Amino acid sequence: MQSVRTAVVGASGYSGQELLRYLARHPVFQLSLVTSRQNAGQPLSQSVYGLPPKVGALTFVDAAPDFALAEQADLFFLAVPHGTAAPYAVALREAGKIVVDLSADFRTTDPAVYKEFYDHAHPAPALLAEAVYGIPEIHRDRLKAAKLIAAPGCFPTSIILPLAPFLRAGLIEPDSIVVTSLSGVSGAGRKLELRLLFGEINDNMYSYGVPKHRHLGEIEQELSLAAGKNVTITFVPHLIPIHRGMLSTITARLIQPTTDSSVEEVLWEAYGEEPFVELLEAPALPEARQVANSNRIQIAARVDARTNRLLLFSALDNLGKGNASQAIQAANLASGLAETLGLA
Amino acid sequence: MQSVRTAVVGASGYSGQELLRYLARHPVFQLSLVTSRQNAGQPLSQSVYGLPPKVGALTFVDAAPDFALAEQADLFFLAVPHGTAAPYAVALREAGKIVVDLSADFRTTDPAVYKEFYDHAHPAPALLAEAVYGIPEIHRDRLKAAKLIAAPGCFPTSIILPLAPFLRAGLIEPDSIVVTSLSGVSGAGRKLELRLLFGEINDNMYSYGVPKHRHLGEIEQELSLAAGKNVTITFVPHLIPIHRGMLSTITARLIQPTTDSSVEEVLWEAYGEEPFVELLEAPALPEARQVANSNRIQIAARVDARTNRLLLFSALDNLGKGNASQAIQAANLASGLAETLGLA
Amino acid sequence: MQSVRTAVVGASGYSGQELLRYLARHPVFQLSLVTSRQNAGQPLSQSVYGLPPKVGALTFVDAAPDFALAEQADLFFLAVPHGTAAPYAVALREAGKIVVDLSADFRTTDPAVYKEFYDHAHPAPALLAEAVYGIPEIHRDRLKAAKLIAAPGCFPTSIILPLAPFLRAGLIEPDSIVVTSLSGVSGAGRKLELRLLFGEINDNMYSYGVPKHRHLGEIEQELSLAAGKNVTITFVPHLIPIHRGMLSTITARLIQPTTDSSVEEVLWEAYGEEPFVELLEAPALPEARQVANSNRIQIAARVDARTNRLLLFSALDNLGKGNASQAIQAANLASGLAETLGLA
Amino acid sequence: MQSVRTAVVGASGYSGQELLRYLARHPVFQLSLVTSRQNAGQPLSQSVYGLPPKVGALTFVDAAPDFALAEQADLFFLAVPHGTAAPYAVALREAGKIVVDLSADFRTTDPAVYKEFYDHAHPAPALLAEAVYGIPEIHRDRLKAAKLIAAPGCFPTSIILPLAPFLRAGLIEPDSIVVTSLSGVSGAGRKLELRLLFGEINDNMYSYGVPKHRHLGEIEQELSLAAGKNVTITFVPHLIPIHRGMLSTITARLIQPTTDSSVEEVLWEAYGEEPFVELLEAPALPEARQVANSNRIQIAARVDARTNRLLLFSALDNLGKGNASQAIQAANLASGLAETLGLA
Repeated sequence: MQSVRTAVVGASGYSGQELLRYLARHPVFQLSLVTSRQNAGQPLSQSVYGLPPKVGALTFVDAAPDFALAEQADLFFLAVPHGTAAPYAVALREAGKIVVDLSADFRTTDPAVYKEFYDHAHPAPALLAEAVYGIPEIHRDRLKAAKLIAAPGCFPTSIILPLAPFLRAGLIEPDSIVVTSLSGVSGAGRKLELRLLFGEINDNMYSYGVPKHRHLGEIEQELSLAAGKNVTITFVPHLIPIHRGMLSTITARLIQPTTDSSVEEVLWEAYGEEPFVELLEAPALPEARQVANSNRIQIAARVDARTNRLLLFSALDNLGKGNASQAIQAANLASGLAETLGLA
Repeated sequence: MQSVRTAVVGASGYSGQELLRYLARHPVFQLSLVTSRQNAGQPLSQSVYGLPPKVGALTFVDAAPDFALAEQADLFFLAVPHGTAAPYAVALREAGKIVVDLSADFRTTDPAVYKEFYDHAHPAPALLAEAVYGIPEIHRDRLKAAKLIAAPGCFPTSIILPLAPFLRAGLIEPDSIVVTSLSGVSGAGRKLELRLLFGEINDNMYSYGVPKHRHLGEIEQELSLAAGKNVTITFVPHLIPIHRGMLSTITARLIQPTTDSSVEEVLWEAYGEEPFVELLEAPALPEARQVANSNRIQIAARVDARTNRLLLFSALDNLGKGNASQAIQAANLASGLAETLGLA
Repeated sequence: MQSVRTAVVGASGYSGQELLRYLARHPVFQLSLVTSRQNAGQPLSQSVYGLPPKVGALTFVDAAPDFALAEQADLFFLAVPHGTAAPYAVALREAGKIVVDLSADFRTTDPAVYKEFYDHAHPAPALLAEAVYGIPEIHRDRLKAAKLIAAPGCFPTSIILPLAPFLRAGLIEPDSIVVTSLSGVSGAGRKLELRLLFGEINDNMYSYGVPKHRHLGEIEQELSLAAGKNVTITFVPHLIPIHRGMLSTITARLIQPTTDSSVEEVLWEAYGEEPFVELLEAPALPEARQVANSNRIQIAARVDARTNRLLLFSALDNLGKGNASQAIQAANLASGLAETLGLA
Repeated sequence: MQSVRTAVVGASGYSGQELLRYLARHPVFQLSLVTSRQNAGQPLSQSVYGLPPKVGALTFVDAAPDFALAEQADLFFLAVPHGTAAPYAVALREAGKIVVDLSADFRTTDPAVYKEFYDHAHPAPALLAEAVYGIPEIHRDRLKAAKLIAAPGCFPTSIILPLAPFLRAGLIEPDSIVVTSLSGVSGAGRKLELRLLFGEINDNMYSYGVPKHRHLGEIEQELSLAAGKNVTITFVPHLIPIHRGMLSTITARLIQPTTDSSVEEVLWEAYGEEPFVELLEAPALPEARQVANSNRIQIAARVDARTNRLLLFSALDNLGKGNASQAIQAANLASGLAETLGLA
């Protein structure tokens, strides 16, 4: 296969580093450009571990969102903060490039929702119409033709994939959904904040971001799409002292009493053929470690007959299926490649 | 004050070890006997760290539940497994001793509930009537006269204390309660099980025990008492890679829309004078590390106005307020001592 | 390339599991048999995470060391305890198979040394003559013709590789060598021992196995080979609360005062062309995380001019270059394949 | 006993926080002032966990090193960085106050050594003559009369205490000493540095600061005092992913062959009566967790007969005996109090 010149814009954070590790071993996407303002001039290997020597020897460059940048690759992954990503997307889309944005800038189709959750006007509303939300198991067909992919946040994938089949089938009460998610620390980014020091997180755990975490906008958008009506949920994220991993526990009132095997069957019909969805049968429940360093998500379903609730469980790597590797899965589709390429 | 001869029966587990560390520094309770089948003949210091030299030099003995045992102390803490504790309680109560049982044997007043959750007939139903459930903030008056105290399990304290005031006041819908709890590994005990190896838990996390964890019996008993009617809840425990700590996140539908300050006020009225309940004001939320090695529980309340739910958060040390130190708090009451003695 | 039928004997421990993860992605070695007494009858995926579905679906079998076993593959990795491995090696070598033994049974050429360190007579001394010690950077030529490979213990690789060039060149005093090694917990195996519980190791660290750890026999054998005379060292291993990783810090008196760049040059001459040896230049020092999940070893050298000592530092993954992946590197050589196959 | 008005200057770091936790429970030292530039105006409880409510309610103030500061307490602990501490010490000593400095400013008696290791001229050389190095087991008599105490760095206590008796007795070759120390992360302070993020240290470990760590100056000063001649050592510190704890492994050539029991006897003679030195008998070796949250140091000695080396092992809490609690032990002496007060 012919290689595709590939760029990562903003590769000094945990997302960008993880993208580099996956791309370094991808058989088609070939790194032609890696940017970072803070590491410009340094070899990748100085700050990113786990790269093959040839890739590690590449040099970070600083690059503005302009035509010169667009010249240097045909596929661009944006791993910069929300707000910063949009100008790059505008410039690169003008130049006809395929853009996979890992920030929040193009995840919600309604700019008013963006403003509600990110506290500033959307920086490039004209591009929202062509953006495709990057969960392949949900939007595969649209991703095949996508030019601008909005890779999901780290919580949404773990919540949308388990819930969507049940909302589509009308098996649960949409206003009864309560979600608790546990996130590894890398989900908070590689930032100089006191709360992210080893000494503050080790032997500690806590909830945060209630009642309106920023990812709720995109989560509820996709759940509403599945349900065919507006869905509003209660969502409580927690920080846990592990580096990578995300666990979501979801409960919802069942419309009718049912059994473990029936709800497992709903998942099998939805995802039985999916290469990256691992459905667990009772009594197995998802474990963060089992999906670490992979693009897989583990999902299990159970019935709590005592309270007539559906219990859904998922585990993924918040830097993998929750971020970098899922972005590559989506990019494979948009590039006409086998969806699993570089992700085995 | 005159000292009280105090025994710990079964002090080789994490609960028993923690009891020893607290009792070693208690100004009135004086260790006169420490038993352990597996460590019999060894000095305490060989397997329990953190003891003052004088206490560390005591020797573990093996002791059957008989009259000879009862002779050796006046206050007995039982830190043996459920089923094993009951015969000790029977023998010691016959001898007129005060017993604080950290197992599940006397926590549920109805022997049928015990059988439902522990899969065998209750081993000493005649004693159930005199047992008092050992949360001082809920049962203080009865504990002052108690001779047999059933120290709560590690999850219940973290769930009952936040919920009770709201159930008593009828502010939430009892059948809407969903609880997610995160437990440190010591809650699973000091046992030779593959799943408890460092290599299996480090960098890992998962839910377990759904939908009917053993602690549900006592949790629902106490919540029903507070509500004045039967309460059944959805409860999902999780194992987290820290040694000590417990975090509970509780949601329930509000009967009427209300505000953060109103729900905080409910907690202040219930616990404002409690020495071991630390009520946090928004935006602070409980953190496991802040209550580690203490008898304190942190509690916070919030309203999720988008879904009209009450959000309750609690953090405690599962070996402290969730176990050993709360058992001492209750024993202080039953011994006519200041409730805070040895727990400052 | 034609595939090679490959077996892993004893794949329930951390070494065996890691071998399976590497072999599952190896382009030539194809798993035809995986044995485990305790997991016999279960699919691999039940106890080994991180396997592709096709490999995860294979079933563990129980297999005695006999001719029937030998029939089922052409390349055998033995991941069973020392003493248990030898009978398998005897049976498989009789049948003409290539054997890579990850136990200690064939690491020391002198059966008396085996007896000194393992407290029982060598179980198959007749095979010792043909065994080749499996560090490719030291014994590459012999490994190309090897039929029985003794894969090194987890500490030796981290110590022998840094020291060998300096001993060969006579630059240090052999009797002045002091080695401190830090090991991740997986190095102790996946065993039901109290000391390996999360609750015992988390927030803890300690030295052990002094003054005569079992790996000293093979370490001193290889160091003596390099020096051309008997070398006896002081070696202190430590257990550290991480799952995988090994760090060795080595000091030795220099024969003559020298400089950082001179000692770095010695390493470059020895290993500059090695694909799996990553030489760090001052001020960089090896880090466990940078080589996790890889077959690489990081090495750095420095001079402590104040005391005229050479300081050597190495880091590797004790399940990777210290164990499973290095065994595959050696097997590649013995199978006439590119040394880096399946290890990129 | 009459209380002593006590101040902590610079209490926002891990050392200062730990001092507050100890002082909050000290029966004589009573906190009258707590300073912090960055937290000024906040209650202590906002950033320091584990304080009793009464102490947590105190407010951080910002305070310059002047006479007004000296008025507010009679005993001052300085927990500010080296260089910053000296001006406080000058002002407070002028006002006749007792000063315990936890920085490096007064640890080395020779200002040239300070300059060599800290790269700037000593900020208050006139005070060096009256400063006493704060290891009570070594300098007890001088500490009883001390007005300016230089509390040791976190590594020195763990190295000096084990070695001093052997150097005093002339049992080891001073130029053969090699020390490897493992430090918990809190030893690096509570600073906004990328390397201190949870994501950078979790699952990682590495050596650093070779060949001339800043603490070598004070270590060699005290070892030379014990030996009666200049001692220069090789010292390699390591960073380990635990919050608190320090382990030192020390090797030195024995002058004459000897036995385990002989070297244990040397320690017993030196420290058998010391309340905070826990001497372990073979086969026990020090463990970090066993001394966490305490003022104790564990020490063990062994002979490596194969190489005729003495092996010494120590473990302490780098925030306890290695820092805050030892500072209080020294302050007890200087205040004419029982040495163990507040440290039981």
